Amino acid sequence: MKIAVNTGGGDAPGLNAVLRALTLGAESRGLEAWGIRHGYRGLLEPEEEGLVRLDRAAVRGIAHLGGTILGSTNRGDPFAWPVLRGGALTPVDRGTEVAERLAAQGFEALVVLGGDGSLRIAQKLLGRGVPRVIGVPKTIDNDLPGTDRCFGFSTAVSTAVEALDRLHTTAQAHDRVMVAEVMGRDAGFIALHAGVAGGADVILIPELPFDLERVAEKILARERAGRRFSIVVAAEGASARGGSSSVLAPADAFREHVRLGGVGALVAQQLERLTGKEARSLVLGHLLRGGSPVAEDRVLAQRLGAAAARFLAGTTASGLVAVRGGEVVFAPLECVLAPPRRVSLEDDLITTARDLGICFGDEERPAP
Amino acid sequence: MKIAVNTGGGDAPGLNAVLRALTLGAESRGLEAWGIRHGYRGLLEPEEEGLVRLDRAAVRGIAHLGGTILGSTNRGDPFAWPVLRGGALTPVDRGTEVAERLAAQGFEALVVLGGDGSLRIAQKLLGRGVPRVIGVPKTIDNDLPGTDRCFGFSTAVSTAVEALDRLHTTAQAHDRVMVAEVMGRDAGFIALHAGVAGGADVILIPELPFDLERVAEKILARERAGRRFSIVVAAEGASARGGSSSVLAPADAFREHVRLGGVGALVAQQLERLTGKEARSLVLGHLLRGGSPVAEDRVLAQRLGAAAARFLAGTTASGLVAVRGGEVVFAPLECVLAPPRRVSLEDDLITTARDLGICFGDEERPAP
Amino acid sequence: MKIAVNTGGGDAPGLNAVLRALTLGAESRGLEAWGIRHGYRGLLEPEEEGLVRLDRAAVRGIAHLGGTILGSTNRGDPFAWPVLRGGALTPVDRGTEVAERLAAQGFEALVVLGGDGSLRIAQKLLGRGVPRVIGVPKTIDNDLPGTDRCFGFSTAVSTAVEALDRLHTTAQAHDRVMVAEVMGRDAGFIALHAGVAGGADVILIPELPFDLERVAEKILARERAGRRFSIVVAAEGASARGGSSSVLAPADAFREHVRLGGVGALVAQQLERLTGKEARSLVLGHLLRGGSPVAEDRVLAQRLGAAAARFLAGTTASGLVAVRGGEVVFAPLECVLAPPRRVSLEDDLITTARDLGICFGDEERPAP
Amino acid sequence: MKIAVNTGGGDAPGLNAVLRALTLGAESRGLEAWGIRHGYRGLLEPEEEGLVRLDRAAVRGIAHLGGTILGSTNRGDPFAWPVLRGGALTPVDRGTEVAERLAAQGFEALVVLGGDGSLRIAQKLLGRGVPRVIGVPKTIDNDLPGTDRCFGFSTAVSTAVEALDRLHTTAQAHDRVMVAEVMGRDAGFIALHAGVAGGADVILIPELPFDLERVAEKILARERAGRRFSIVVAAEGASARGGSSSVLAPADAFREHVRLGGVGALVAQQLERLTGKEARSLVLGHLLRGGSPVAEDRVLAQRLGAAAARFLAGTTASGLVAVRGGEVVFAPLECVLAPPRRVSLEDDLITTARDLGICFGDEERPAP
Repeated sequence: MKIAVNTGGGDAPGLNAVLRALTLGAESRGLEAWGIRHGYRGLLEPEEEGLVRLDRAAVRGIAHLGGTILGSTNRGDPFAWPVLRGGALTPVDRGTEVAERLAAQGFEALVVLGGDGSLRIAQKLLGRGVPRVIGVPKTIDNDLPGTDRCFGFSTAVSTAVEALDRLHTTAQAHDRVMVAEVMGRDAGFIALHAGVAGGADVILIPELPFDLERVAEKILARERAGRRFSIVVAAEGASARGGSSSVLAPADAFREHVRLGGVGALVAQQLERLTGKEARSLVLGHLLRGGSPVAEDRVLAQRLGAAAARFLAGTTASGLVAVRGGEVVFAPLECVLAPPRRVSLEDDLITTARDLGICFGDEERPAP
Repeated sequence: MKIAVNTGGGDAPGLNAVLRALTLGAESRGLEAWGIRHGYRGLLEPEEEGLVRLDRAAVRGIAHLGGTILGSTNRGDPFAWPVLRGGALTPVDRGTEVAERLAAQGFEALVVLGGDGSLRIAQKLLGRGVPRVIGVPKTIDNDLPGTDRCFGFSTAVSTAVEALDRLHTTAQAHDRVMVAEVMGRDAGFIALHAGVAGGADVILIPELPFDLERVAEKILARERAGRRFSIVVAAEGASARGGSSSVLAPADAFREHVRLGGVGALVAQQLERLTGKEARSLVLGHLLRGGSPVAEDRVLAQRLGAAAARFLAGTTASGLVAVRGGEVVFAPLECVLAPPRRVSLEDDLITTARDLGICFGDEERPAP
Repeated sequence: MKIAVNTGGGDAPGLNAVLRALTLGAESRGLEAWGIRHGYRGLLEPEEEGLVRLDRAAVRGIAHLGGTILGSTNRGDPFAWPVLRGGALTPVDRGTEVAERLAAQGFEALVVLGGDGSLRIAQKLLGRGVPRVIGVPKTIDNDLPGTDRCFGFSTAVSTAVEALDRLHTTAQAHDRVMVAEVMGRDAGFIALHAGVAGGADVILIPELPFDLERVAEKILARERAGRRFSIVVAAEGASARGGSSSVLAPADAFREHVRLGGVGALVAQQLERLTGKEARSLVLGHLLRGGSPVAEDRVLAQRLGAAAARFLAGTTASGLVAVRGGEVVFAPLECVLAPPRRVSLEDDLITTARDLGICFGDEERPAP
Repeated sequence: MKIAVNTGGGDAPGLNAVLRALTLGAESRGLEAWGIRHGYRGLLEPEEEGLVRLDRAAVRGIAHLGGTILGSTNRGDPFAWPVLRGGALTPVDRGTEVAERLAAQGFEALVVLGGDGSLRIAQKLLGRGVPRVIGVPKTIDNDLPGTDRCFGFSTAVSTAVEALDRLHTTAQAHDRVMVAEVMGRDAGFIALHAGVAGGADVILIPELPFDLERVAEKILARERAGRRFSIVVAAEGASARGGSSSVLAPADAFREHVRLGGVGALVAQQLERLTGKEARSLVLGHLLRGGSPVAEDRVLAQRLGAAAARFLAGTTASGLVAVRGGEVVFAPLECVLAPPRRVSLEDDLITTARDLGICFGDEERPAP
């Protein structure tokens, strides 16, 4: 059985480890794996090495490497493929063409390592004639519905924590407030885990709209206790509570984000005003996607890749290779249509954070 | 309520993070926490600063530090306390004395961060008058019964993987077999996780008695395929299958271990003989216990410490702060009396490893 | 002999290692070292623990820690000390008072670990009655006159390179231009070393005013060769060549810096316009100051600290503990009055960079 | 001009960085570089891909990778080439054959990245007809004569320091003596730099024969001061002072090394006897050779590689690309015939170490 594999959307540490395990698992079961380079481009556009045979040699020694051997992934929607018509780029639906080309090459299944966008596209392709689709969930935000854990998340948290460790020593030397902005458009997993692991004083997540006056009180309370610096970790999708007079209402905040360069910059600016202390912000986003996967992610990614090969050989269904309660399972592909996972407000990590004195900006009265 | 805390047995990255979270959680609930330094020595022997108040200041900034602020932990059994009598050290049962001294100081509960040995001692102390005991499981081997995950394990695996990454580049340059020996007297969790994450070719764990002839065949098969080096990860408690003529029977192997310095050295020596290739061994054990906890362990350790404080304040029971299915629960303390957890032979990580072509030495015929 | 020590200006990895070596070296020579906390505040303002005895116990285990045990350093000019007068903060010259208070406490010498600002202040204090001053040069920019190398520089470069490694994998996956802004107001040492070590495609330093059209050509040339991403490292003080029409003239650029948040953001914005490729920027500055010193800096910092103690005991002069040609020497304190060191245009590292195909934006025609 | 390049002897972090810089520098000067795989094997034995064209594509993205893209390097002496004759491996002089084959392929120069063994071989080849030889010194021990600094050294020291940091936390928790054995057969550079950077209590180097009774006194003095653990760093070539009764005389010690597995194990065993404390040893050697080069080494390696290309194009001489006083120079190849560099007893790093209270075992009376 010939199978095609592609990696879509943003990158995440661990992609190559998935590819390696998938390839070796496929080989051991008599499957022939091919990678489509550059998302769907390697299939839809005439391209040198658009399709690359994934065999033992192709995946040798790649498990610890960041990035993806299948190349750039950012142009990916075959259902809205930018085509030059009359001097302008027009989105064209080439979905059926994808199915046809795959069939012409003899591919019986498509494995997609992707985020919710890529997996939805993959799911749609089933309806256009691709006989079988296996999804392997990829998002460093860890918010993909249908699975408890995505690979790349542990690495992103580790990278964020390394940065926070560095910010700590420098904030302490300068009596400053340092605001680190991390990924997390819809969910605050990275901010929460990194904030707790990295000793933040304030964590701002999308699930808990914040009031910067509460945050300012926390910072000033620390000051009175002789702790003249504070570290704030903010998820990019965090926003202010509506109606509080000291910060912009959410809609205005969003526009302010765009103008200033992120919620981190906005929060830093406001906190300077509210506390009188120097505040600096730093966007960690681009750093979090890159680099070598940590051990935890290398293990998870390889479990997922090997499981994908097992499901390909052992069943005839489409599905999502997911993690549930620590086990790797084969879930219905429709799971990906659900809304993003979000941090549960009952998550014991939030309780732990509050016990540690971490402020979320949602308190009624100042955190002690 | 006054509570006493101690850390027993070997150290593990994350101890200080547990102490910090426990302390802050205790403070926020009106509990007064004190640490006993050096295991039980700070209680049983007259000692300067034998008891140290654990308050906000005492635990400031320690969450990312390896080691333990409560000092050396290696002499710990109050039920067999070495006392100098007649010129020789005699073990004396001072268990009741521990209970009495704790009571004299007004301590209503004892929190023990320890491995199975320390937790069994803690459980015994209940029978001697200590009113209440909370255990927080600590072992980098991750084999403590009663809990799915122990803090320190992720860090140990990460450290092992860093070492394996380095061994890879050097083995490749020298056509060698490198044997890395890791912790794991009863269970092969570290060897299995590190071996998969670190790209090992062979993993030897206690749960799967090995035949070195199978391992030699794997190494020679790689050689024929042009891969002239091999990496073997061996858990310290791994042993040879009985009856195979090319290696010593288990009992003899054990004695050989002692003489040569570990299963790693033994395996290297045997593989040199069996394959004709140079083989070197390296004991990673001492490196795995030390250093800063990785992000994953900082999160887990703080969840456990905060949960311990919650259970102390919210219940009156003794128990073990454990992880079950990703949740932190309060389990009966008797859990610790069960045998060590071992890697299940159905663990999908073993299946994944075999799919990746990793040899466990337990195969019937040579691994491809 | 009693000596006072303080750390002034920004922090740099290695400060604690200097303090440790200075303290142990002083102890072994019968000198009594005291640290002034928070720059000069510990001396000029009534403060708990303003002066802390630096003995063996005080400096135990600190050599590998980032930050400084002598606390925040950012308010430091005794010659323009902010004093509240009539409701406003007025700068007051308290230089002589510093000398008097030092004398009153019996201090015969002052050791200052600082950058050019702090060392100039220290040099001025000689004229106000401080009998003796020893300077230990500190700047992660490595641009302090009078010494070839400053501690903290190696760590800053390492941190920058770690970030560049991460940016590489993510830029590659997204066909982007990533612009990393690093420290270096007057000199491009960090940008140059990190750029070469981190595989940058473009390095922009203050010593070589750039023309972004040259940079754009380099990026597009890479694109034509199939290398669709590019990494640019820019020192914060780098600026555009005057007169080139495609970018703002230097003065306007400076104002644009302030408005947009740095040369990195400005360069990214311009490159997007010039190349049509997505470009993102990231300010690494705050990360570079923090964290644990790398091995190289731990060695250098301890050599400098021990040398300071040797010079204190073995001579009666004031001076700067400097590195010249790999050796640690005692140079005249006036060295610090010279202009900042700058990367020499004949530096073989620039030649090496050009040989590697790295573009500085100062070329006459596009780099190949 | 066609040039051949090979990497000989053990590996060292930075080899690939040298190859990359050499290749790009060569390309920009119209030179055609080819790599000989596996030492001289790719030239002397019929082998697939024995010679590999070193062009831009071949060296893309390798600068940060450990190992060498030119493969295994451990069989390298063309003057004593193992040839199977009459059933046994006999060393045969094939030196002239190397020259002839190089000439037959049109190579006008040979660039050797190697240690003293490989560079001596290269120098001998000049006498057999190889028209020109450029040597780039490679040894992580940093003891190559003719150059102040070799690439790979900084990385080896960094790796050793990471290990020492981990050993510190675990030694402290267990009241132990930890003995870490590092590379350094003739010179103690790694032990000295890592020992100072890593906070060792004792450093044993070949240049200073030690008396373990002095070391034991240091350890017991620390114990009396409440510091119950000690870290010893020993270079593999360190040896005991003759005539001291508590340890074996040097010759016996050497034999004991072999039997027990290294000077580290021997020292640990003796110290246990002399101090009554638990002592453990760990050989770091294999870890030090591997892994990614640190920033410092990536810079140095690329400077050396680029300089090699410059010298190839700009002169007609043979020579050694060396570092003198921080500058890269072209030194006479005969430099490599000198004895290994050794740590000078006047090196200010030894003085610094003594000031820090570090014991070398060569003291007359116990270190304080």
